[in-house]
Amino acid sequence: MRLSRYFMPILKENPKEAEIVSHRLMLRAGMIRQQSQGIYSWLPLGKRVLDKVNSIIREEQNRSGAIELSMPTLQSAELWQESGRYDAYGKEMLRIKDRQDRPMLYGPTNEEMVTDIFRSYVKSYKNLPLNLYHIQLKFRDEIRPRFGTMRSREFMMKDAYSFDLTREGAEHSYKKMFTAYLRTFDRLGLRAIPMRADTGPIGGDLSHEFIILAETGESEVYSHKDFVNFDIPPADTDFDDAAGLNAIFDKWTSVYAATSEMHDEAAFNAIPETARLSARGIEVGHIFYFGTKYSEPMGAKVQGPDGKEHTVHMGSYGIGPTRLVPAIIEASHDDNGIIWPASVAPFDALVINMKAGDAACDAACEKIYAALSKAGKDVLYDDTDDRAGTKFATADLIGIPMQIIAGPRAVANGEVELKDRKTGARETMTIDAAINKLLA
Amino acid sequence: MRLSRYFMPILKENPKEAEIVSHRLMLRAGMIRQQSQGIYSWLPLGKRVLDKVNSIIREEQNRSGAIELSMPTLQSAELWQESGRYDAYGKEMLRIKDRQDRPMLYGPTNEEMVTDIFRSYVKSYKNLPLNLYHIQLKFRDEIRPRFGTMRSREFMMKDAYSFDLTREGAEHSYKKMFTAYLRTFDRLGLRAIPMRADTGPIGGDLSHEFIILAETGESEVYSHKDFVNFDIPPADTDFDDAAGLNAIFDKWTSVYAATSEMHDEAAFNAIPETARLSARGIEVGHIFYFGTKYSEPMGAKVQGPDGKEHTVHMGSYGIGPTRLVPAIIEASHDDNGIIWPASVAPFDALVINMKAGDAACDAACEKIYAALSKAGKDVLYDDTDDRAGTKFATADLIGIPMQIIAGPRAVANGEVELKDRKTGARETMTIDAAINKLLA
Repeated sequence: MRLSRYFMPILKENPKEAEIVSHRLMLRAGMIRQQSQGIYSWLPLGKRVLDKVNSIIREEQNRSGAIELSMPTLQSAELWQESGRYDAYGKEMLRIKDRQDRPMLYGPTNEEMVTDIFRSYVKSYKNLPLNLYHIQLKFRDEIRPRFGTMRSREFMMKDAYSFDLTREGAEHSYKKMFTAYLRTFDRLGLRAIPMRADTGPIGGDLSHEFIILAETGESEVYSHKDFVNFDIPPADTDFDDAAGLNAIFDKWTSVYAATSEMHDEAAFNAIPETARLSARGIEVGHIFYFGTKYSEPMGAKVQGPDGKEHTVHMGSYGIGPTRLVPAIIEASHDDNGIIWPASVAPFDALVINMKAGDAACDAACEKIYAALSKAGKDVLYDDTDDRAGTKFATADLIGIPMQIIAGPRAVANGEVELKDRKTGARETMTIDAAINKLLA
Repeated sequence: MRLSRYFMPILKENPKEAEIVSHRLMLRAGMIRQQSQGIYSWLPLGKRVLDKVNSIIREEQNRSGAIELSMPTLQSAELWQESGRYDAYGKEMLRIKDRQDRPMLYGPTNEEMVTDIFRSYVKSYKNLPLNLYHIQLKFRDEIRPRFGTMRSREFMMKDAYSFDLTREGAEHSYKKMFTAYLRTFDRLGLRAIPMRADTGPIGGDLSHEFIILAETGESEVYSHKDFVNFDIPPADTDFDDAAGLNAIFDKWTSVYAATSEMHDEAAFNAIPETARLSARGIEVGHIFYFGTKYSEPMGAKVQGPDGKEHTVHMGSYGIGPTRLVPAIIEASHDDNGIIWPASVAPFDALVINMKAGDAACDAACEKIYAALSKAGKDVLYDDTDDRAGTKFATADLIGIPMQIIAGPRAVANGEVELKDRKTGARETMTIDAAINKLLA
């Protein structure tokens, strides 16, 4: 992508409304724009990151055996009356009347709808276990939306729903998602700690929040420091192997970790003082086992091997992609801007032409841009006639992992400079060497 | 994907509510489910097709130079008051009040919001031309939603918006989209005819609908038969070459084509009778040039090369992916079910195990499934113990282009049967030959 043809509106000034660094950097880098209170557009640079986050989430959901579908954003009130949540949900639910005056709502979550889908089609235990997920917009009419897309009203959620014949099966399904979440956050460059959590309005008796540590986090968290060194389950993890998943789950729940709602001061104090971690964190995922809370009132039953009808056991599993993007920034930035993990960077490399219009600089940049693009890399090419200082500041602000800087002096020697955004390390090398290094 | 672990709820009976073949087949193949009137879930098989359609649309938008972003579904009423459309839009607009009693709406289209984004950031003609698009849900509260996702209330739209300094520039932008649309529909296996169209509530003075012919179409259309043989612009079309795009546009608008609203009986009758085509059609795309209709009231101006402020010229360009899926089925099916064009098929191949549990059949199927999957093909493997007749009927219903049938007799000879869904041609060959043929 040539920057001269791209739409990446960089803000020079720090926006006043931004209280936390990720919100400030996302606005300054032209990633998002607030359209109404707590409702955002994702501008092209932000959209690219969001897509990469979603694609990692999707890969790990699929790997665990979950199946993607897409439920609509608007739901009829009737479904929620069946579960009893229509009245209980409160003002965060955006209630709507259509032209026929039918009561509808903008889905804040999808337990009711997916249970309705399940009961319409699935009649036998032979079709279980089943885990259905979608990545879809949700709306929660927060009284105080803030921190940009970290706590917005219209937001994106990956929500998965598992169906099993027995509690034992449901726990296996729960641990599949537990494992998939560990892998997902790791691939996003985050170290997330699973913590026993309150189940809130979703309900149920088993629940973990996945929390990443950040000073600006809204949750107070308490845990053992050992989490930092626990191994992430590998890509070839067998999700059908219940014993193997039990071992992963047991390891990751073997030491203390809890949010303030579930905090047990005595248990925490039993940890050696040097191993205690008391910090702030951002919730990036939340998983629930809630048994028959929805299947019972909504009549989601299957015939079991005994020929009788059994109410299915369910769980739900959420990750917020539009919250993950700022969470990644909170965890990875410096004074000059964002430092993207390679897996979610909007572009793999940024080619900076220090003297656009100069035949040698143009030729060097075009050669690098063409070679990397041809090899399937996402490359942003700054071909504008902005000043050098502006180009460098923008490069650091938008945080693309590798910068290739082509200035007249170096190019005269057939060379360019590579700058690693994260370490700041710079290296001068021939144009071919630079291409080879980026394709290595 | 193993069918035993997939969620593909096939309906045995023809659903009564379906009036047209695509709606009937989408319900029977378990592609969609109606959740409320005119509001659908896309079940896994449908979601796969929708994703493939969107990915072709996206590739062709990007090729033409349009840039993807993502605007939210909910909009504030204020923006629409600025353009004057808030009162004009009528009951199809779903109006909402949030908890603060602020008037909002579920976007039926995005001219206002994208103009607001433009005016906030773009100040100079140097940043033009610009074309921003997104693929996002829309809501239009139709009085009579029908035909499944062909005319639903919540639907997906790719909408692009172009910004230019001059009318001449805007016409070049219009022709870029015109060309991109020809390529898009062709890649979807459709022959779409661009027809001069009424501009309706979007406004403007230049507009084309892209129509595919189908008996169940809602539009009456009149055209010259020559369209069927016009060449589609190639993938290496230079979208910066205004003269080249003019030639494409002139060719494709050189003979008569109009919807009933714009029909000119005299012009149509001037066509030789054997070349006249009078038929029904489905609108699958609609493009508009509307000049300063939104930029003027909303103050979207840039500084021109003359140092003065100029109100920008705009166009908008829509394609409905959730309508395209049934449109493709209307154009490509037989009595037994859907016949997917390869480009949008939910799976590339279907492996049918005629005797699941038989060691030789299982081994043959697993070998084929593994080899094709490893090569990056999307394969559905029917490993269920359903009866042969059920498996064949399902295979034809869901319309995957190639079926690989592994029955005990053939497998005993090291062979399988290949069936081409479209032609019905069957061919017996060795397992390796079948793999090689599918990977060729």
